[in-house]
Amino acid sequence: MNALIHMNDLEVGYDVPAAIGMNESEIQTPCLVLDLDALERNIKKMGDWAKAHGVRHRVHGKMHKSVDVARLQEELGGACGVCCQKVSEAEVFARGGIKDVLVSNQVRDPAKIDRLARLPKLGARAICCVDDIANVADLSDAAARHGTTIECLVEIDCGAGRCGVTTTPDVVEIAKAIDAADGLRFAGIQAYQGAMQHLDSYDDRKAKIDIAVAMVKDAVETLKAEGLECDIVGGGGTGSYYFEGTSGVYNELQCGSYAFMDADYGRILDKDGKRIDDGEWENALFILTSVMSHAKADKAICDAGLKAQSVDSGLPFIHGRDDVAYVKCSDEHGVISDPDSVLKVNDKLRLVPGHCDPTCNVHDWYVGVRNGKVETLWPVSARGKAY
Amino acid sequence: MNALIHMNDLEVGYDVPAAIGMNESEIQTPCLVLDLDALERNIKKMGDWAKAHGVRHRVHGKMHKSVDVARLQEELGGACGVCCQKVSEAEVFARGGIKDVLVSNQVRDPAKIDRLARLPKLGARAICCVDDIANVADLSDAAARHGTTIECLVEIDCGAGRCGVTTTPDVVEIAKAIDAADGLRFAGIQAYQGAMQHLDSYDDRKAKIDIAVAMVKDAVETLKAEGLECDIVGGGGTGSYYFEGTSGVYNELQCGSYAFMDADYGRILDKDGKRIDDGEWENALFILTSVMSHAKADKAICDAGLKAQSVDSGLPFIHGRDDVAYVKCSDEHGVISDPDSVLKVNDKLRLVPGHCDPTCNVHDWYVGVRNGKVETLWPVSARGKAY
Repeated sequence: MNALIHMNDLEVGYDVPAAIGMNESEIQTPCLVLDLDALERNIKKMGDWAKAHGVRHRVHGKMHKSVDVARLQEELGGACGVCCQKVSEAEVFARGGIKDVLVSNQVRDPAKIDRLARLPKLGARAICCVDDIANVADLSDAAARHGTTIECLVEIDCGAGRCGVTTTPDVVEIAKAIDAADGLRFAGIQAYQGAMQHLDSYDDRKAKIDIAVAMVKDAVETLKAEGLECDIVGGGGTGSYYFEGTSGVYNELQCGSYAFMDADYGRILDKDGKRIDDGEWENALFILTSVMSHAKADKAICDAGLKAQSVDSGLPFIHGRDDVAYVKCSDEHGVISDPDSVLKVNDKLRLVPGHCDPTCNVHDWYVGVRNGKVETLWPVSARGKAY
Repeated sequence: MNALIHMNDLEVGYDVPAAIGMNESEIQTPCLVLDLDALERNIKKMGDWAKAHGVRHRVHGKMHKSVDVARLQEELGGACGVCCQKVSEAEVFARGGIKDVLVSNQVRDPAKIDRLARLPKLGARAICCVDDIANVADLSDAAARHGTTIECLVEIDCGAGRCGVTTTPDVVEIAKAIDAADGLRFAGIQAYQGAMQHLDSYDDRKAKIDIAVAMVKDAVETLKAEGLECDIVGGGGTGSYYFEGTSGVYNELQCGSYAFMDADYGRILDKDGKRIDDGEWENALFILTSVMSHAKADKAICDAGLKAQSVDSGLPFIHGRDDVAYVKCSDEHGVISDPDSVLKVNDKLRLVPGHCDPTCNVHDWYVGVRNGKVETLWPVSARGKAY
């Protein structure tokens, strides 16, 4: 988005999928549509929850990769800032005016470390995670070189099985090294349990988070005994925030998917055994698709295939319809079972994607819709910023 | 790519993953790397095969979405033009100087039909597919409106189960309507059997194509008896081109993946029972990834997850290594089994993606490498052009 784009040169369908004021039926497909009313309700609801429970909410920007959505989360949801997963994403958010940015991930490549150290020059607080004492000197050198401060969280692997250390002595060792290093500030703990977020059962999720909270609590108390205070104890996602947020140990949530919802998250159950997309969170993100062929009576072919979504967590479902079903996905097409032949060519359908994060990452634009009209176009500002 | 980009403003890692002349070890990851020697050999080999067998090769541009690769396929592989799946892609290829462009798909939305009719004004032959007689009048009206000609292939569903008619009488009816319509030219048959390309067994694939060839032959001969000649009888992919190309019925191949190869195609077997990535085609496309955490002795975490690839057809494999394996993929991370702890942080690995088409579609750049050095940077020109 740093390129100089002449907005007057843009043409609907050529560069952008819609124009402001257009009816939803005129939008060029496939594209991402946001139901702005639902989005705003989701954002406000999570913001209110965090406020009521006395925890900060650092929204996960890697889900939507949008400066505009992040700003809405700050304004309407009281978010304290964003987290994201790559330095290239952090740069986009910082340039977009977000003042408090956490790269909730390891930064190891020398060029990336150098860019991270320059992030404060874009006006943002720069925070990253560390799970290896060998990383500390490299981060310190870069901060010193640029005369900036990098704040560091020690990452605990509390069950996700990816990055992070697994013992309190390891946490303390790295925290002390950070605290002693020029240009760095020890800022606390990162402990996101990603692996449990999609367990259907509320009790199964709680059991996993109980383990995580116990690990984090031990680390925080031990650090305190060593004179190291945790400004941030961060973690929690859409499937678990009520556990971390009421633990008395975590003070920052990092929810992402709640704002948009997707099919995979939607099917997990709340404590009353009800799907979380049936009351707790609304579907606000859709892939708008059109029927483009109906040469067989019982099968419609739509224009949203693998280039319009990620199917890693399963196929999308068709919002608000039980008479037709999205049953197969290839590169450019979706096959829709239409046993009663109710669909017609050029009919539009709203698909709820299986997994929102990698689906948003293939699109350039969000088309914001309210009352059937296009109200706004937001770029997917950090799309493709994987490095 | 139509935006005005100030190349001097680009910075490695910020906007582009590499600089020309750089060593492969310095490239910012994750990104797509092309082995230019392997790519050129693949392109020349398929071009030579088509020439030797007296068929044209219309390369599938939807696989790579790159004007630069398409031009190489024309120059080095004698390609007659490109096919692609969306009007927005066709526009990119036409603006990039490709003179013969087939949208091997249905075009039904009024705005898309209008844009298709304008394609010849960009200097390209415009061809599309039709599987519904109701489409003919809309295409004809648009061509007449713009004073251009749209050439039309009737699409036969010869087994893929997506778009296309399934009987010769249906083909003839639509062909006659095209032939009679102002602004349209009946140009032949589109019959791509997509569903069989990934069957492992050569004989299983042959059996499916035998059925397709018989359907197409009947249609072509019946059309001829009605006075309608097929300029183009197109189809064939990397798993089947030798069937269509020697059928005496097809005269244009539409191969895509052969140029890059991927893990899913690679495992299908040739007539001698050998994997096609073991001799027939070389792996030319890689996701370059870096190890970014190794906090557990037997497990390395790399920086290529779902944002750097599509896993719809399975996980990537690590090229040239059997001591380590890519075993799990989440949004931002890949988990690499490293039982002997041989990997170190910042080590780079070349991943062969499970499925090249949707993987290319999440990246902005191809980094062309020869002899360990970056030789070129090519934009993924039609990335995100799904509409």
